[in-house]
Amino acid sequence: MNRIITIGREFGSGGRELGRRLSEKLNIAYYDQEIISEISKRTALSEEYIRRITESRPTVSFPIHIGRSFSPVPDPLVQQRISVYSEQNKLLHELADKSDCIIVGRCADYILKDRNPFRIFVYADTQSKLDRCMQRKPADEKLTPQEMKRKMAEIDRGRAQYCAFFSDQKWGARENYDLLVNTTGKDIKKVTAAIAGYLEHLEG
Amino acid sequence: MNRIITIGREFGSGGRELGRRLSEKLNIAYYDQEIISEISKRTALSEEYIRRITESRPTVSFPIHIGRSFSPVPDPLVQQRISVYSEQNKLLHELADKSDCIIVGRCADYILKDRNPFRIFVYADTQSKLDRCMQRKPADEKLTPQEMKRKMAEIDRGRAQYCAFFSDQKWGARENYDLLVNTTGKDIKKVTAAIAGYLEHLEG
Repeated sequence: MNRIITIGREFGSGGRELGRRLSEKLNIAYYDQEIISEISKRTALSEEYIRRITESRPTVSFPIHIGRSFSPVPDPLVQQRISVYSEQNKLLHELADKSDCIIVGRCADYILKDRNPFRIFVYADTQSKLDRCMQRKPADEKLTPQEMKRKMAEIDRGRAQYCAFFSDQKWGARENYDLLVNTTGKDIKKVTAAIAGYLEHLEG
Repeated sequence: MNRIITIGREFGSGGRELGRRLSEKLNIAYYDQEIISEISKRTALSEEYIRRITESRPTVSFPIHIGRSFSPVPDPLVQQRISVYSEQNKLLHELADKSDCIIVGRCADYILKDRNPFRIFVYADTQSKLDRCMQRKPADEKLTPQEMKRKMAEIDRGRAQYCAFFSDQKWGARENYDLLVNTTGKDIKKVTAAIAGYLEHLEG
């Protein structure tokens, strides 16, 4: 069975950078935005749309019927969401079949649980995440620190809701991971080397 | 400043063994039961009593006064508890002053927070902890698995309450630690080597 490492992360904690660096260090595949692009290709829906609905809780709105009809007409939007989720599910298994890999986000820890992934969760304190986000935001993004803080909280809320909806498990709760890593005040390069060292000795 | 590593742990997760092994690997001092013995010596109270009151939330019962007296008479039991806590607090700082060390439990992560300790929390799933406890219980301990499970939960509840009382922080919550390690199904010797590898690269 291929070696699968999943990385859950708080927005701004450096989890994505860590995933990318760890994949380089271990010389294995890395999937993050690539998943969005591939699902976009397969479903002919925009990447932006895929990103939005796979990072927040789906609001499944069943139509209410009054009168004689008992067969609900399928809501095309709901159908579309369901097909995106099922495509993502399929894709994660395909990637895990293909080779050793690191997958960031997307409830991969839960979706691939039968493959015994090593499940990492990366987090940091609010100030540390805020500093990171403000330093790295695109030049044309005008968010104030206060607005950025709200955005960070909103994105994490979406991730937590998405996981709760699909897995019934609590995003970021220690029992769902093998290792939780606090990056507050830490250099991500060093944290990457540290995790690689951890894995080497655990498996050695 | 000396290098301080603190280890919080769920009962049965192997945290104590891990602490002892890590201290041997890093060649630094290790304190766990030694703290109980020393406080017992200093306060002339039994080790069993010290253990009991430093592993559960103190029930501070202030006497209620009716009538003319406005100066409460100090409750000797409360006074005794307070002196044990203050002795423990002092002792932890003395140990941290003396040399590099690993301290297991006792809210040391919080008490020594100004010394920037590396704070580890060790946990495992219930079955894994139960197996460990049943294998290692003394021959004369007659607890059934069900009773052992209750004992495990009770001890962890006591630890959580003790920390909440003294630190106002949540025992086992990721934000209060640098690294949380799941030992489920893992060999503690390998986890020890893994943590040593993590620290080496993080600090290297």
